[in-house]
Amino acid sequence: MSTIATAVDPDLLRARLDRARSAAAAHGADALLIAPGSDLRYLIGGSGSSFERLTALVLPAAGDAVLVVPKLEAPGYDGVPLAELGVRVATWVDGEDPYGLVAGLLPAATRVAVGDVLPALHVLPLRDALPGAEQVLAGPVLSALRMRKDAAEVEALRQAGAAIDRVHARIGEWLRPGRTEAEVGADIAAAIVAEGHAKVEFVIVGSGPNGASPHHDVSDRVITAGDVVVVDIGGSTDAGYNSDSTRTYAVGEPRDADVAATYAVLAAAQRAAVESVRPGVTAESVDAAARQLIADAGLGEFFIHRTGHGIGLDVHEHPYIVAGNETVLEPGMAFSVEPGIYQAGRWGARIEDIVVVTETGVESVNHRPHELVVLPA
Amino acid sequence: MSTIATAVDPDLLRARLDRARSAAAAHGADALLIAPGSDLRYLIGGSGSSFERLTALVLPAAGDAVLVVPKLEAPGYDGVPLAELGVRVATWVDGEDPYGLVAGLLPAATRVAVGDVLPALHVLPLRDALPGAEQVLAGPVLSALRMRKDAAEVEALRQAGAAIDRVHARIGEWLRPGRTEAEVGADIAAAIVAEGHAKVEFVIVGSGPNGASPHHDVSDRVITAGDVVVVDIGGSTDAGYNSDSTRTYAVGEPRDADVAATYAVLAAAQRAAVESVRPGVTAESVDAAARQLIADAGLGEFFIHRTGHGIGLDVHEHPYIVAGNETVLEPGMAFSVEPGIYQAGRWGARIEDIVVVTETGVESVNHRPHELVVLPA
Repeated sequence: MSTIATAVDPDLLRARLDRARSAAAAHGADALLIAPGSDLRYLIGGSGSSFERLTALVLPAAGDAVLVVPKLEAPGYDGVPLAELGVRVATWVDGEDPYGLVAGLLPAATRVAVGDVLPALHVLPLRDALPGAEQVLAGPVLSALRMRKDAAEVEALRQAGAAIDRVHARIGEWLRPGRTEAEVGADIAAAIVAEGHAKVEFVIVGSGPNGASPHHDVSDRVITAGDVVVVDIGGSTDAGYNSDSTRTYAVGEPRDADVAATYAVLAAAQRAAVESVRPGVTAESVDAAARQLIADAGLGEFFIHRTGHGIGLDVHEHPYIVAGNETVLEPGMAFSVEPGIYQAGRWGARIEDIVVVTETGVESVNHRPHELVVLPA
Repeated sequence: MSTIATAVDPDLLRARLDRARSAAAAHGADALLIAPGSDLRYLIGGSGSSFERLTALVLPAAGDAVLVVPKLEAPGYDGVPLAELGVRVATWVDGEDPYGLVAGLLPAATRVAVGDVLPALHVLPLRDALPGAEQVLAGPVLSALRMRKDAAEVEALRQAGAAIDRVHARIGEWLRPGRTEAEVGADIAAAIVAEGHAKVEFVIVGSGPNGASPHHDVSDRVITAGDVVVVDIGGSTDAGYNSDSTRTYAVGEPRDADVAATYAVLAAAQRAAVESVRPGVTAESVDAAARQLIADAGLGEFFIHRTGHGIGLDVHEHPYIVAGNETVLEPGMAFSVEPGIYQAGRWGARIEDIVVVTETGVESVNHRPHELVVLPA
């Protein structure tokens, strides 16, 4: 439960802290209160832990940053260059009031922005401890920074993408009739680590009718010949950046007659959405590019989720590729393009790559072929 | 990311839902808003998933329960007996407003209790969507129920305890000079699953000076002869209940001359705290029993955390065994008793068992010897 400290350049972290201060001020917030998690890792290079004891980085728009942390968890930040970043540490022990400690650091605050992942357990006591301060979400402040990846972050996403591509290249070793989704998933999980991730984040093996449930993970269902199987997998690397890629497999010839034609529509939709990505277009236009093509084929009702999500230190982050999101894409933004078509009770298919907006267009960090992969039955 | 549904008796779940309704009413709350996690699992038998899309069980003090869930995550509840429990499902899709959906279910609410783990991301929009309703924490309502374990829950804790005891019995297979904490930790993690857990929750291997950091996990430090090593490990079983047990090992004779005498104090303190447990005493009195003995030996300043935490579906839950907690112990309450003594820069030691309050006293679910285990160097 100690913090995993990344070897991020302290100059880069200092610049991020300064940008966060400016962004907080621009949002009218006197301070950001950042909980353990990816926001904290982005700002100080360590993600902290998030048990029931309050840990929070108190980052005033003007003034010194203070890391409020339980005394027994403070050693977990030994690898974080707090002094170099100008972050003071304020520890507290069981029985003391950490909310009063935070409030004492912000005597004149009228508006504080709390990190999106801070649990209600801490949000409500902080409100009580700072009765004069309106609480708003820090998400918009932090996500505006985090969704514009720098060169090192893009390279980290490429490395994660290459690692998950290597796992997809090996799916045929494990996916065959007679094995359960859970057995296949366990082999995939081991390979996610073996191929270059620090940690498995998720393994979805959706065979036959289970493929029609987009967030199915694995089950005891036994793979049988004729199954179409959605394999959606990802992990995080030592640097903290995530992979996330989906390919759809068939175990022998698909038993459902509509698979080939439907899959062709899906592949075309995924390609059209990726090709629509460039600086200056909106997130929702990328969603529309995939959705229109599927709708034109009469399959719109079977594409039941958004087209994608941002990715970086979190598997899901901004920008979301969804109707209504008018965020204008900029170089450095990274997200999934993953349309799916789901035939309830029978089968489903999804194709997912992570792409990065470049100065002139788009780069995919995943390079596995998009065709339905037919494995021996 | 689909829900792991447990095979909990629906009658038991219905009784829990009814008790939660009554407890909400007693707290003056018109409804509980329960996020994915252990509270949800306790009430409906499935823990759900907790991504950025809102999932919440809306449980009015009077009226029907509604599970608000993203449409694409609804299939994850297929194994949960929602209909039998009288829980209606209300789905929403990307682009719709789930907060308005919740507000529409509670038109007259003046006070809603939000689950402790609900993130700020959802807490603040729910506040805006229900401007006439004061938000309070659901934690006190739920924890009062959850900390009184029934017979099936106590049996589940016994099984988890036996599984982690089997892992501690094997530590000598892996802990030896020349290996890193991380290597030892990986072997322990595999054994946690092999010996009967569904999932590894945490592995702490704190060797030498790292043992003096209570929440250290593992590092690349190489174990050397003379090290004292704190091994604090736990996992969750299929039923969702957690193990958590610490033993302290020495690799050959400890290099520090003060280990034997200090360890004897620690073992006596842990025993005294366990022996103080019975119905009718307070949580803080158990903490005091351990603390007094360590203070009397002149080592009080080196015992830098509370004596224990409740355990069940969460690794850390109520009751906390800490100064100031006047909760009166009742049969069925389960918690760790884990005093520790930490000599910064040199070594640390901790002994931890999970105990359950019985009708007349106390039962430990862990049965490994308490002595310092000296392994070959």
